Amino acid sequence: MSKTNQGNFFEDFRIGQIIRHATPRTVTGGDQALYTALYGSRFAVQSSDEFARAIGYARAPVDDLLVFHIVFGKTVPDISLNAVANLGYADGRFLAPVHPGDTLSARSEVIGLKENSNGKTGTVYVRWVMVKKRDEKAKAPEAQVPDLAKSVLPADLGIGCPKIAGKLWDTALSGSAHRFKDYKKGERIDHVDGMTVEEAEHMLATRLYQNTARVHFNQFSEAKGRFGKRLIYGGHVISLARALSFNGLANAFHIAGINGGRHVAPLFAGGTVFAWSEIIETADVPAQSDLGALRIVTRATRDLPCGDFPQKEASAEEPGVILEFDYWALMPR
Amino acid sequence: MSKTNQGNFFEDFRIGQIIRHATPRTVTGGDQALYTALYGSRFAVQSSDEFARAIGYARAPVDDLLVFHIVFGKTVPDISLNAVANLGYADGRFLAPVHPGDTLSARSEVIGLKENSNGKTGTVYVRWVMVKKRDEKAKAPEAQVPDLAKSVLPADLGIGCPKIAGKLWDTALSGSAHRFKDYKKGERIDHVDGMTVEEAEHMLATRLYQNTARVHFNQFSEAKGRFGKRLIYGGHVISLARALSFNGLANAFHIAGINGGRHVAPLFAGGTVFAWSEIIETADVPAQSDLGALRIVTRATRDLPCGDFPQKEASAEEPGVILEFDYWALMPR
Amino acid sequence: MSKTNQGNFFEDFRIGQIIRHATPRTVTGGDQALYTALYGSRFAVQSSDEFARAIGYARAPVDDLLVFHIVFGKTVPDISLNAVANLGYADGRFLAPVHPGDTLSARSEVIGLKENSNGKTGTVYVRWVMVKKRDEKAKAPEAQVPDLAKSVLPADLGIGCPKIAGKLWDTALSGSAHRFKDYKKGERIDHVDGMTVEEAEHMLATRLYQNTARVHFNQFSEAKGRFGKRLIYGGHVISLARALSFNGLANAFHIAGINGGRHVAPLFAGGTVFAWSEIIETADVPAQSDLGALRIVTRATRDLPCGDFPQKEASAEEPGVILEFDYWALMPR
Repeated sequence: MSKTNQGNFFEDFRIGQIIRHATPRTVTGGDQALYTALYGSRFAVQSSDEFARAIGYARAPVDDLLVFHIVFGKTVPDISLNAVANLGYADGRFLAPVHPGDTLSARSEVIGLKENSNGKTGTVYVRWVMVKKRDEKAKAPEAQVPDLAKSVLPADLGIGCPKIAGKLWDTALSGSAHRFKDYKKGERIDHVDGMTVEEAEHMLATRLYQNTARVHFNQFSEAKGRFGKRLIYGGHVISLARALSFNGLANAFHIAGINGGRHVAPLFAGGTVFAWSEIIETADVPAQSDLGALRIVTRATRDLPCGDFPQKEASAEEPGVILEFDYWALMPR
Repeated sequence: MSKTNQGNFFEDFRIGQIIRHATPRTVTGGDQALYTALYGSRFAVQSSDEFARAIGYARAPVDDLLVFHIVFGKTVPDISLNAVANLGYADGRFLAPVHPGDTLSARSEVIGLKENSNGKTGTVYVRWVMVKKRDEKAKAPEAQVPDLAKSVLPADLGIGCPKIAGKLWDTALSGSAHRFKDYKKGERIDHVDGMTVEEAEHMLATRLYQNTARVHFNQFSEAKGRFGKRLIYGGHVISLARALSFNGLANAFHIAGINGGRHVAPLFAGGTVFAWSEIIETADVPAQSDLGALRIVTRATRDLPCGDFPQKEASAEEPGVILEFDYWALMPR
Repeated sequence: MSKTNQGNFFEDFRIGQIIRHATPRTVTGGDQALYTALYGSRFAVQSSDEFARAIGYARAPVDDLLVFHIVFGKTVPDISLNAVANLGYADGRFLAPVHPGDTLSARSEVIGLKENSNGKTGTVYVRWVMVKKRDEKAKAPEAQVPDLAKSVLPADLGIGCPKIAGKLWDTALSGSAHRFKDYKKGERIDHVDGMTVEEAEHMLATRLYQNTARVHFNQFSEAKGRFGKRLIYGGHVISLARALSFNGLANAFHIAGINGGRHVAPLFAGGTVFAWSEIIETADVPAQSDLGALRIVTRATRDLPCGDFPQKEASAEEPGVILEFDYWALMPR
């Protein structure tokens, strides 16, 4: 019997199956320092213990997306080692702040399965992932597609941070005078700056998250693969876009919920990432009287500045949108 | 009104103006680990809690230049987003040791302004930076050039570290038997080693400092720019030169003052940095009887070993000096 | 007298000589975060404070090889600055767990010296290193080759970790159901995955270890050297192979002893590292009733997947084995 993990194939999953993932991970200030070095994130709450304490935290929490990536990374050996594509996310909520010293563990429940018409692959709904079948002739379970929430409800937001004292929010230190009331539904913001990605950077990031998906690391095999080169972990693009969004959304300090995310085109080393955001909803947060919630769709592009708010998806050769990320962020009133 | 930061232009500055900068930053052991990985710094005081405690520190302080870069990075969005060039520094002093857990904030005062004769740019004296005018026809204030100190006075040195017990300084552990008395005015030291810089490295460093200057990160736009490639943050060169200077100045453990610094030519990825130093003054430090101060000018070169102590500035294509850094370092007697 | 370190030459070493090395180094969580980002290590004991505590540690120790590399790095300025090759290691034992906050110092004893027949170099047995003679005509001491243990004895293993409670070992969290009893002498395991190495990565790693060996950093001089390019620190390959070996040896949580290691061919940036392991002995560990010891030889290859368990050494141009690493790992029964 082989001792190496071959990963699960489509026919290995069952509706209702609970998977406890290896490896638990204690998050440290070292992880946060690397996160800062990889993306240049500047949100004051995550950057400064003093700033975080002033508004109600015990100390600076680590970046929400660092938590997301570590948890996501744990699911890879069990869920997506044989994935063709990581198709999307839905209905993600952050339930508690994470501080250096906290240990993260993860478990997944399979909530949907749907074989594709080609008979070779199928979609596994954990997040939703297209996974290879081991045996193309294996019988698939009856398709069961979960009824995914279109978005997290505002009533469910705001428990992932302590009670925030909005009046103690210092806009000179946070980098922007614009508070919740200054943002309107339909508003579009070009985040202006661009960031070029190097092979060493995305591999450092993806290993930091203990994400072992093979397409990111092995040039020897990828040279013969679909693109001829290593594919950058989609989450790296989310974090780049979020860091770029500081320029225009500096006070959107906490990602409270992830409504959905789609990686619509790949990114490779040498590409430059830009981003723009649209405010698609504003909401009160019952749990947090000093905060409001902005529902934001951030689009990241490859080799395409966002002054014209592009929506066209990138093709293999042409610039365009590579990510649509729909999330709720909290902001002081 | 745009929510993105367009940065300040020359005509936005006023003499006496005080600017509180975003984003406060708690320094951690993670930052110091990254600093070590980026430059290979080996000064014993910053490397070992035990060594630091033995001579009088509470524990190992972080590297002085890590503090410098973080503070400098904070000023970029307000001071130099529209800078043509960061021309120099003067009269910098380190007033207290910084330990992991400390939070850094920064403010600047404008102490001089001088429009350039081309009418398109002007010099802002905070550090001194050449900044674009938004409107070339905008009227400039009367030129006011500050009377900058040629160097920090020895009497002002030595308060940035605790009282040091020089007799407890272990030269086997620190890496050199040469103490303050062994260095003479006029002495030149070739630091021998060279360090090649990669794109991923200088970008990781510059983001770690939350320095957002665009020329360092965006290959898409820089491809059409002055050099056709990303420009390496000048501070990266200072830190490389300082780390290389360990080989010859291993006991110069603390940068107590920065007299001046000039980036005389650019560095790009792929270039190899060498360095040599000249002792231009030695001084007693009233505040520290067990220490002496060496005024050192370190020159860093690009693609040019320093056995001949080169002074010629690099041109775009040719090797030569890229940095002159004039500072006071403290060393045990 | 030169203030720069020229390193020791063969004729500078004496049998019995004790060398205290600079620079002491306090290990932090930041170092461990970087280690994870560089190799993607996923062993649960080093990854999670909770997991480590459950089985008997005070908290998660840092990776054994991080300790090895830091200690090794300290020896470079005194032992191998003028080394032609780092030929091997033998009889290494880990005597205590290292936690963030601990400070590492190192000393070496010269236990053997043997001039080579060419009269230009000689072998220094600390680890064993081929070192240049300063003066080819200098007389060499009588050859003295130490009687190196073929392997660490199992009776000497198991003191580098606390008493482990094997029954509290959670195989779902550790990532593998295979315990000590499941491994047999002669068993071979292909670790499947490959990892491509970038220049920025191996330089960050090697500087993190404060290893100053010149061949790793200076493209300007290496361009004219033996290979025309920077040589990757051999320890980087050991750590990559160890991290890859998680896939098949996930419960081999602690390197208790290093029996030997040989770097049989160089690695350069752009190469992809694969690995396979052979169990060459299994043993009880008197000090640890809940654990067993596996003697493992891990071979790392360059640009050669390991499904066929290759033993052929790589040549300069052709793929093949680059490392043989013979060690004892402890695993729960």
